[in-house]
Order: sequence, then C-alpha cells, then structure tokens
Amino acid sequence: MADQSAHRPSRREPPGVPSIRWEDRPEGPVLVLLDQSRLPAEEAEFVCTDPPALVHAIRTLAVRGAPLLGLAGAYGVALAAARGYEVAEAADGLAGARPTAVNLARGVRLAQEAHRSAVLEGADGAAAARAALDAARDLHRADAEASGRMAVHGLALLDELLPGGNHRVLTHCNTGALVSGGEGTAFAVALEAHRAGRLRRLWVDETRPLMQGARLTAFEAARAGMAYTLLTDSAAGSLFAAGEVDAVLVGADRIAADGSVANKVGTYPLAVLARYHHVPFVVVAPLSTVDLETPDGAAIEVEHRPGSEVTEVTAPRAAGAPGEPGGGVAIAPWGTQAYNPAFDVTPPELVTAIVTEAGAVSPVTAAGLAELCSSSRQVSMG
Amino acid sequence: MADQSAHRPSRREPPGVPSIRWEDRPEGPVLVLLDQSRLPAEEAEFVCTDPPALVHAIRTLAVRGAPLLGLAGAYGVALAAARGYEVAEAADGLAGARPTAVNLARGVRLAQEAHRSAVLEGADGAAAARAALDAARDLHRADAEASGRMAVHGLALLDELLPGGNHRVLTHCNTGALVSGGEGTAFAVALEAHRAGRLRRLWVDETRPLMQGARLTAFEAARAGMAYTLLTDSAAGSLFAAGEVDAVLVGADRIAADGSVANKVGTYPLAVLARYHHVPFVVVAPLSTVDLETPDGAAIEVEHRPGSEVTEVTAPRAAGAPGEPGGGVAIAPWGTQAYNPAFDVTPPELVTAIVTEAGAVSPVTAAGLAELCSSSRQVSMG
Repeated sequence: MADQSAHRPSRREPPGVPSIRWEDRPEGPVLVLLDQSRLPAEEAEFVCTDPPALVHAIRTLAVRGAPLLGLAGAYGVALAAARGYEVAEAADGLAGARPTAVNLARGVRLAQEAHRSAVLEGADGAAAARAALDAARDLHRADAEASGRMAVHGLALLDELLPGGNHRVLTHCNTGALVSGGEGTAFAVALEAHRAGRLRRLWVDETRPLMQGARLTAFEAARAGMAYTLLTDSAAGSLFAAGEVDAVLVGADRIAADGSVANKVGTYPLAVLARYHHVPFVVVAPLSTVDLETPDGAAIEVEHRPGSEVTEVTAPRAAGAPGEPGGGVAIAPWGTQAYNPAFDVTPPELVTAIVTEAGAVSPVTAAGLAELCSSSRQVSMG
Repeated sequence: MADQSAHRPSRREPPGVPSIRWEDRPEGPVLVLLDQSRLPAEEAEFVCTDPPALVHAIRTLAVRGAPLLGLAGAYGVALAAARGYEVAEAADGLAGARPTAVNLARGVRLAQEAHRSAVLEGADGAAAARAALDAARDLHRADAEASGRMAVHGLALLDELLPGGNHRVLTHCNTGALVSGGEGTAFAVALEAHRAGRLRRLWVDETRPLMQGARLTAFEAARAGMAYTLLTDSAAGSLFAAGEVDAVLVGADRIAADGSVANKVGTYPLAVLARYHHVPFVVVAPLSTVDLETPDGAAIEVEHRPGSEVTEVTAPRAAGAPGEPGGGVAIAPWGTQAYNPAFDVTPPELVTAIVTEAGAVSPVTAAGLAELCSSSRQVSMG
C-alpha cells in the first residue's frame, strides 16, 4: 500500500498565510483572504474592498469552511460599515451567499447586532463600524480557543473509544486551520493525536467535486508532517472492508436540534459504511454550528451547486476558480446535466458522538444537545 | 433537480465506431480499437499491429471493460499468431496485463487453445493463426448474443422486483456497447428498460478516478436518448436517502465461486448503501465472468493502479491518456501518496441477484451459481 512517512512534529508548525485577516490600508480597510481555490498550486491572496467582492469570494469558495465563513461574515459586516455601505443590506447579501452554512449567518448577525447597538447608543458611523470590527475580532479569538478545546475533547474521546492508541483516522473535505481562526475542527483532533504520537495514519478523502481533501487537507497534513494517504471518495469502502479505518472524523456545516448533521456531500455514505463496519463516526464542530431553530434533518436547506462542477474538471493552476462555470474542460458529453448537492444530511442515529468546545454528546440526542448548548450559554454568561 | 429529457428511441441506435475490429490490411492484419481514453472528446482509433501495442492499450485503458477485454485477449492471440510472434509468450503477456479481469485471461486461453489444437492436428502457421482468429470471432458473436439475453433476463428481474415499472436505476462505471461485442451488461438491461418505455431515469456515477461514468456511460446514455443525470460517486448517498433510487445495476470483473463480486472501485459502498435503504442491488455479467476456481472474495487479487490517477487530473482532450503517470496536472501537493485500488469486492450477502445470459441467481449462493454454470455448460455442449 502507498505510504507517506511521518516526521516528528514541532509543537507549532509555521502557520503559512493566514486564512483571513483585516488590514487597515491608507485607502481604507480591506479584508484579505487566502484564496483557497488556488491551493495547493499557489498561496495567493484575495483582497476584498467591499461586500460584493466578499460575496463573490464566498460563492466561488475562495473562502470556505463552516467556522471561517462565520468570521468572513462578521468581518464582512465590519467592512460594509467602515466603507459606508448600507449595513442591513450588505448583511442580508452576505448571510444569503451560502444557505446551508449556519455559521455564516451567525457571524453576520453578531457583527450586525454590535453595529446596531452602537448606533442605538448614539455612536457615530466610525464608532459603530469599530464596534462591528470588535465583534468580528472577538469571534475570531473565540473560534481559535474553541478549536483548541475541541482538539482536546476529541482526542480524549478517541482514546476512550480506541484504547489501543495508534489511530487510523479517515476524514472528508477540509476542516483544518484553513477553515478556522484556530486549527479547525475534525482536523484539529487528528493534529492533536499526531502531536501526541498517537496518529498512525490520516486517510484523506479527495472530496469530489471540488477536491478540498486532495487540495487542502493533503496540503495541511503535509505541512504538519503527518503520515497521510489520499484516496478517491469511493475507495473508502475498500479501506473499511480491509479493517484499515479505526474512526471517521468529520466537521459539520449545520447541526439540527435533533442532532442531524449537514456536512459536505459524501459524509452520509461514510456514516453508513462506518455503521456497517462498527467503526465510530465522530462529528467535530463548534456549538455555533448547532442550530436549535432547525428541528431536524428534513428542515435543513441543502445548497445545490452548478452542474459544471461535475461535468468539467478544473485544475488549481488553470484560469477560472472552481465553482465558476466555464472555467474547466468538459469531461462529460455536451449537454449532460448533473445532480450536485453541496451537502448531505446524516441522521443522529448514525453519529457516534458530536464533539464541541464544551464537550462531547454521545449518544446524540436532542436532549443531550440542548443541554450542552444551554450549559455552555450559562458558562459564557457567568 | 437537474433534468435530462428523454427522446423516443428507435429500435437500434447508430452504433458509432465499433469498440474492437479485426482488419486485414495489405501490410498484414491489425486489431483496431476505439480509444476509450479519448472519449467523449473524440472517437479516435488505436491501431495495434503487434501484441505489445495491445498490452499497452489494455494497461492504459484505451480498451477496457470485462467482456471486451476477453475479446481483446482472444484477438490479441490471433494477431500474435498471424504476425509470427511466439504465441505462448504473447499470450502470457496479454493475460497478465490486468490481473483482476478474469475475462481477459479466459479470452487469451481460448484462442491459444484453438491455435495449439490446430498445430497438434498438423496445421501450418497460417492455418493455426486462422483457427485462433475463428475462436476470437466465435467469442465475439457469443458475447453479443449473451448481451441480448442478459438484457431480457435483467429487465424481467427488474419488473419482478419493482412491479410499478418506471424504474430509476443507478449505475457505476461503464458497462455498455463500449465494453462488449453486443450492448453490454448492466447498461444493456437499462437500455432494454428504456426501449420498453419503463426507464424513468438512469443515474450515472461519474466513477473516479478515471471517470468512465462521466466520459463513457453518459456518452452511451446520450446516444441512446435516455433520461440520465450524472453525479459524483459520493452524491449517490443523497439520492438513496431521498428515495430516488429504485435499483442499482452494475457489472462485474470477476465473480468468485461463493458469489463475491469484484467490480470497479465504488461498487461496494453502493451495495452497502443499497442494503441500508432496502434497494435491490443487481449484478449483470456473463457466465465467463464467474471463476469457480476462485473460492471467495478474499482470494480475488485486486489490481492497484498508479497514485497519479488520483493526485493528477487529466482531461480527455489533454495529451497523455488517463492511466499514464505524468500526463495530468497535479491537484494534490507534491509528494502526496494515494491508495488507488481499481476494484473492490462485494460479498454475496449484499447482492440481490446475479443476472447472466443463462438466467438469474437469487439469492446469491455458491450452490446456485454452480448450478447455473453447470446447466449452461450442458446446454452449450448439448
């Protein structure tokens, strides 16, 4: 079998270009994004000077991943305010750029609320814009801290589920530092295991159609010196059958009140395979991903993306970012239509545990999830 | 949802370029293949003047698919004999070009046996070569007839399993006229349902890494005027969850004596999903695919292909055929290793039925399979 040797990690790897940062420039503030649609071919920056540019970046996946979308939404409102845009209108545009990701709307509303409160308290435009920016920065800091706590809780859970250590973990899509103010969600747990010397291998699903696993997770795994191996999404079945997977770790884009998990398409088939093979299936996500107002999986709106993401291939180096129709080379016959949901929904009975910054819920029940959310709210208010 | 409208089919569609044909040319006989690695961008021919060229075509998937590989193997032996190559050596090279496909070795041995018998009976080189060619042509004819019978048996089974008609069928990889002397295996059943007005939709898995579904099955479905929709392999989970799949139809590259089915990687996850959702999972393959000398799934040797098929993308129009390392553009970071089994193995308990030209076996048991093989042998000897 193909092998990727690990090297002994230093405690903190060089962080590379940050995924998102606010910059005050002479001509006005800007939001600078690491353009994830160009990775791993190049670490290019995407500079947003106004909210429409950010909406474009979100839609074309230059910026993506549940926690990071929350930060992008909050900073986007701050940018709108600082640049003199109508804040409510900009907020609506940002919140609607991708409908399934609850963190995006959350981040937008949080900064918008801070802005509105400041205005109501008599602040002028500049001061209200600063209030929105402070809210975005607080969220950024909280997100980084949440990453660290999820990593610790997640590794503790892995060690409990698999007392032998030496974990072989399968993951899907990309959930590392690229999607987070910190080190991510599911990937942060694998990284914690790696640093503790207890990760034997990270199996990386390529994650069709946009290849976030091949392009981004492999990039992060290589940077961290992990032992990792890439595979096509459907080759995961062979790994399960061969007994080569000890646990599945994935992130989430929205978790309904009943514990149903919306995540990148391809997650649900992994959950079914994991159940069939009696392998733990663990979701790692911050509490901000839990949406108690969405009662169950059926109530989650799943974004359908252009068929061209499936009917054309686009290399990272090629002109045109993935997600922009027409940027690629056709692989299917002319006129072929494609079914291209961006997410799927995994019911709670297939999820072994949901790990959050406040601890894990297992088994996954509406009551357990509600309790975790409410205890966490009490702590943060205390 | 994306939709592809159907048109009323004529009884027989224009066949296009045949997948394989023997041609006697002034400079000597050649084997002409439709180069499947260039589809659907162009219908290019690949002309083999000697066995090494054919081995190359098999390895790079210019010619592929279980039944067609059998024909290629038989014609390859005939070509070796007619061109004055050492037949036994050429036969071994051809039979070993792809280890999992039992039909390839079968076709090779059949033509080789005809050649050897002729030699033993005192035939000269030219007559022995003609005997090998006759054997290949007989196999070609038998394969076409088997296709027709599998289509009829398969549709009868579908109608029995799903009495409502109006079938929504999911398929994986490519199993149509491109892989057969006739109209194929699983695809032939879908085509029969289409012609009978009982196919509501063909869901076409793209089939990573080499995209035989997107490139070839979509091409054949479009040519036949079917209502079809393409999807990434892991989006099949969403279709099952939504109740949009009535049956799964796939081919096979080797069926062990216990009914274990080796087929294109990604088949096994579909079988697990189908079981979880109580959807029939049907394998369509000629009896030549059944290998009673392979006792069970564990005894099937699974070919592992170059990691570059996963770490690079190759558009059909680009230079370099898929399967040739270095022909594509990297999508994963430099140095990334990939796990790339070409096939997976589905155990008999997940297979609702195996449909062959001699009828269907359901439930799939070693005894049922052995009985079908032996009754068919009696028929062909009778």
